[in-house]
Amino acid sequence: MSFISHLECPQCGKVFSWKEVHHLCACSSPLLTRYDLEKAKRFMTKESLAGREASMWRYRELLPVGQGEDVVTLGEGMTPLLRAPVLGRRLGVPNLYIKDEGTNPTGTFKARGAAVGISRAKNLGVKSVAMPTAGNAGGAWSCYAARAGIKAFVAMPKDAPENAMKECILAGAELFLVDGLISDAGKFIARGVKEFGWYDASTLKEPYRIEGKKTMGFELAEQFNWKLPDVILYPCGGGVGLIGIWKAFQELEALGWISGHRPRLVAVQAEGCAPIVKAFQEGKLESEYWTGARTLAGGIRVPKALGDFLVLRAIKETAGCAVAVSDEEILAARGLVSRLEGLVICPEGAATVAALRKMRETGLVSESDRVVLLNTGTGLKYPELVEVDIPIYQPDDFPMGSDGEKPKRGPKADPRSGSGT
Amino acid sequence: MSFISHLECPQCGKVFSWKEVHHLCACSSPLLTRYDLEKAKRFMTKESLAGREASMWRYRELLPVGQGEDVVTLGEGMTPLLRAPVLGRRLGVPNLYIKDEGTNPTGTFKARGAAVGISRAKNLGVKSVAMPTAGNAGGAWSCYAARAGIKAFVAMPKDAPENAMKECILAGAELFLVDGLISDAGKFIARGVKEFGWYDASTLKEPYRIEGKKTMGFELAEQFNWKLPDVILYPCGGGVGLIGIWKAFQELEALGWISGHRPRLVAVQAEGCAPIVKAFQEGKLESEYWTGARTLAGGIRVPKALGDFLVLRAIKETAGCAVAVSDEEILAARGLVSRLEGLVICPEGAATVAALRKMRETGLVSESDRVVLLNTGTGLKYPELVEVDIPIYQPDDFPMGSDGEKPKRGPKADPRSGSGT
Repeated sequence: MSFISHLECPQCGKVFSWKEVHHLCACSSPLLTRYDLEKAKRFMTKESLAGREASMWRYRELLPVGQGEDVVTLGEGMTPLLRAPVLGRRLGVPNLYIKDEGTNPTGTFKARGAAVGISRAKNLGVKSVAMPTAGNAGGAWSCYAARAGIKAFVAMPKDAPENAMKECILAGAELFLVDGLISDAGKFIARGVKEFGWYDASTLKEPYRIEGKKTMGFELAEQFNWKLPDVILYPCGGGVGLIGIWKAFQELEALGWISGHRPRLVAVQAEGCAPIVKAFQEGKLESEYWTGARTLAGGIRVPKALGDFLVLRAIKETAGCAVAVSDEEILAARGLVSRLEGLVICPEGAATVAALRKMRETGLVSESDRVVLLNTGTGLKYPELVEVDIPIYQPDDFPMGSDGEKPKRGPKADPRSGSGT
Repeated sequence: MSFISHLECPQCGKVFSWKEVHHLCACSSPLLTRYDLEKAKRFMTKESLAGREASMWRYRELLPVGQGEDVVTLGEGMTPLLRAPVLGRRLGVPNLYIKDEGTNPTGTFKARGAAVGISRAKNLGVKSVAMPTAGNAGGAWSCYAARAGIKAFVAMPKDAPENAMKECILAGAELFLVDGLISDAGKFIARGVKEFGWYDASTLKEPYRIEGKKTMGFELAEQFNWKLPDVILYPCGGGVGLIGIWKAFQELEALGWISGHRPRLVAVQAEGCAPIVKAFQEGKLESEYWTGARTLAGGIRVPKALGDFLVLRAIKETAGCAVAVSDEEILAARGLVSRLEGLVICPEGAATVAALRKMRETGLVSESDRVVLLNTGTGLKYPELVEVDIPIYQPDDFPMGSDGEKPKRGPKADPRSGSGT
């Protein structure tokens, strides 16, 4: 069922068995899952995917759940690839697409990583998982852990989005709020891992979350009929999705399903927390810890990512780049997408819209480019970023003016909903 | 592309053209869309669906968007049909499934109706749509209207879920909050329809919302490999989904794709607003206006549904029934589903879980029945129904006791998250 063969360290090349619990390599690098792609090539065709289920498990041969092992699923993946023609015209990029990860279970792309990570944990006999999180990964892992009958310990910054906290609580996880950043939450979890042997499910500290995330790359290839777009903009916190998409394209090329043409991968960060952008601009191979990280887009408020070197490698190899945008630009972009395309996106997704505008203005993206924005979650998870300040009417009131277009005393404009044009 | 043939009144039989704008029949009944199913039968096979896109538009021949007309889509439908084995064992119904509509764009099944309704409105040249709503339909129609470039006027009770208000605001709709129930919001909209000629998109006042909703029935049939389950529990407000599923099964039988065996359709309501249950128990053909409607499940707080007679007809014809549950049972059921299956469901969906427990206890459902619960939306849209009341730790704090299982001073239990077992 799966062509998984082993785990491998992308830094020192050391090899590990996938049938045992492994976290980081002795050289402290994350491990990557490898498959017998030569064998897969003989047994799989891309045409055979057509009739399969509408979830990311349609690619099960290239996912790390072995024969006879359980898949823990809530139906994640195979999210819509939407055309965004009106937004595209506004930004001068007519061939614009949004991959909408907000329709995943738990409302974000974190469901993909959690589904694979928890499936592996269950099949390895793990009884409790633990992780720091900006919010959404914790919510997702809590839900999938509940479905697998596994205990979850989750630590998040005290100012993480309340909705993610509520998911953890509803799913019966043990939730800890920490007065600090995700890196502080990480120290908290590290102690439990050390003292109690919790299974460390921190970003890239177990090898399987990224395998779930890579399915975004498989889906993009299949949805574009195996002809990849020119540019993919991705909101980069831990960077697992970007690395995953890059890995997916490598695997698809090894299968002979796509050509060597690669989309330019763009890591989008916030001006208040842009370690990857800084490292990219300085030509470094790794990022430095970003002091005083600050942005309303919590998912990309990651001062130092364990996989930073892989993100920088992926960007460089694909002739991509890294771009930072301000919180004001993020909110303006969010308003633009919802008003023009009817899509309520998360602030991290909105960051990619703002970044595209910049890249178009500076010529890094041209009018003829086929561009994909990754919206990593639904805006419904961020009610605190929208103000409701409108009047309440009695049933017999009828405030419409004679034009029938606008109320005589209109709702006050919401300064935070973004009017950017 | 579509086998649509005409509109028909299910009360008096009068026929209308689908190429013109129509609302209610002169006899004040809603209209239903009819297709040339004899012709469809000659051109379609159920096997041909397999390779199609993972959205409800895979059934486009049986949807009312004509050749050359635009489809307005955000990728809605083809939602997961999830096994719920742990919950099922707990309830004594081992063959239990949840159809999770929370993964639709806008987070609820309302996306289906809005996608078809707005597609038709756009193709009919409509410039503005208007509707009263409990919340989620307004959010969905606002988003799809934005995507179509159509103006939306939405009225909802002032105590509707804030998240739905925020969707309307973000999507640029004209939102009115009314001090009353959905029926009061309806009076408000009726005035705009009369005075300004707004296109009336109220539940069942245009014929196409139900066509979107019926795709839930198509998907259930396809996902069960054309062998329908024994019982379907549906949270019944306006009842469009239930009528739609019933209509879908009629159409599939006419195509020869399913046998005459029909699932028992169950309308689930809240004890504080149960007009259909009352009418069912009294053997009536229509419901009466429910005075003082009250339940935290806003989607089923509908005192009198325009399509009540069709709901009652569908229940009767399938040997189904109508069941009421309390708000306490709803919250307890929600907690049970999230802790046992990792699914954060909406209160309306939770009502079906509570109803199933009752039906199993009273013998209306047996252990061998294959049962589907319709979760109409994600619980993420109802953050106000979960309390976060847990301590905040400093990064150096580590509150775990020596067992490593629970914090020494644990989070306070949330009285509203439901502990029902």
